[in-house]
Amino acid sequence: MKRYEPTDRTKVRRLPDRGRYDADVVHAILDEAPIAHVGFAAEGQPYVLPMIHGRIGARLYLHGAAGGRHLRALASGAPLCVTATLVDGLVLARSAFHHSMNYRCVVVLGAGAAVEGEEKLRALEAISERLVPGRWSDVRAPSAVEMKQTLVVSLDLKECSAKVRVGPPKDDEPDYALTMWAGVAPLRLAFGEPVPDPRLKPGTPLPAYLLKKLGR
Amino acid sequence: MKRYEPTDRTKVRRLPDRGRYDADVVHAILDEAPIAHVGFAAEGQPYVLPMIHGRIGARLYLHGAAGGRHLRALASGAPLCVTATLVDGLVLARSAFHHSMNYRCVVVLGAGAAVEGEEKLRALEAISERLVPGRWSDVRAPSAVEMKQTLVVSLDLKECSAKVRVGPPKDDEPDYALTMWAGVAPLRLAFGEPVPDPRLKPGTPLPAYLLKKLGR
Repeated sequence: MKRYEPTDRTKVRRLPDRGRYDADVVHAILDEAPIAHVGFAAEGQPYVLPMIHGRIGARLYLHGAAGGRHLRALASGAPLCVTATLVDGLVLARSAFHHSMNYRCVVVLGAGAAVEGEEKLRALEAISERLVPGRWSDVRAPSAVEMKQTLVVSLDLKECSAKVRVGPPKDDEPDYALTMWAGVAPLRLAFGEPVPDPRLKPGTPLPAYLLKKLGR
Repeated sequence: MKRYEPTDRTKVRRLPDRGRYDADVVHAILDEAPIAHVGFAAEGQPYVLPMIHGRIGARLYLHGAAGGRHLRALASGAPLCVTATLVDGLVLARSAFHHSMNYRCVVVLGAGAAVEGEEKLRALEAISERLVPGRWSDVRAPSAVEMKQTLVVSLDLKECSAKVRVGPPKDDEPDYALTMWAGVAPLRLAFGEPVPDPRLKPGTPLPAYLLKKLGR
């Protein structure tokens, strides 16, 4: 099984048993997280912005408006950090101290580069298909002008790791004698009832791929 | 109404109509987001880590293990960025280009400082009460040793802004003639059935404050 070798910068040191380096685990978290938080520095100030990402194999893609100062910073080759986190539950312990969350998180370090041509289009398709498989071929494809207005940045998955917490609270032994409720309140991102566009032609059905995505 | 005056670094430039600077809006997003993503730089490399935050008035708090290198970096006074994002829905347009997400996001810039004494305890209470109101007084309070093992970092809310997208897709006028489904698939973080700790005494009821939090 492919594994991302931890470096001094990606090895999980705090609670090392939570560290995961298998590519399958890293990829699955990246694929499930709706967004990633992307960190870069400009004039000594770190910035963290939410972005929608995509993945093809061991390459991550980010996209945005070509004119934006932030996207240009991401494409500059300067060091980046892309972090994707899924919150899986509140962990309610018997002591305030041992309260926690169950979560799955991936941290990717690397340098971004602008992507052009066929790879750029495939990257946009991958971003779309990751979120709603089947949507890409159902909608109007990007025009040449739209492609010019979009900047796609790639980042190789090389220096990355995952950190995962699962399971019940871990209380201090004497605290198990306490009588308050303890356990996990699971959390997940859930879809609500789809809201049709006000200008949608009445009677337009929800496509099968969307029903599937919504879990119906 | 209190307002965070935008600076050159926090003014929303891309799609400026999405910018929000009212303190009420900024605070509400921070309070609802389960976690924040915290950015800092070390030796020229930005890092972005998920952390559980709390707020008292115009002051944000982060906490973690006192021994961790990351927390120490946050307390060093170096520039930080704390970003909290709520994903509210997938926006399905008629063109690939106009696909989007509905979201609410706050970006806070500033410098962190370690907090001690009474403020430190109140900060931990605020973090706990923000996530599960009522839990703090139900559990064993932090011991002196646990307080020493915990580092709390404060960050003043001064240079911050929110960015919010709501509503249906905005398609190019000719694309409204296309016939595929378009609209919004709403998303929200939802609680599942609570999982009692394996060592919980059978028959221990879920407390009222937790039932309320779970929306029952």
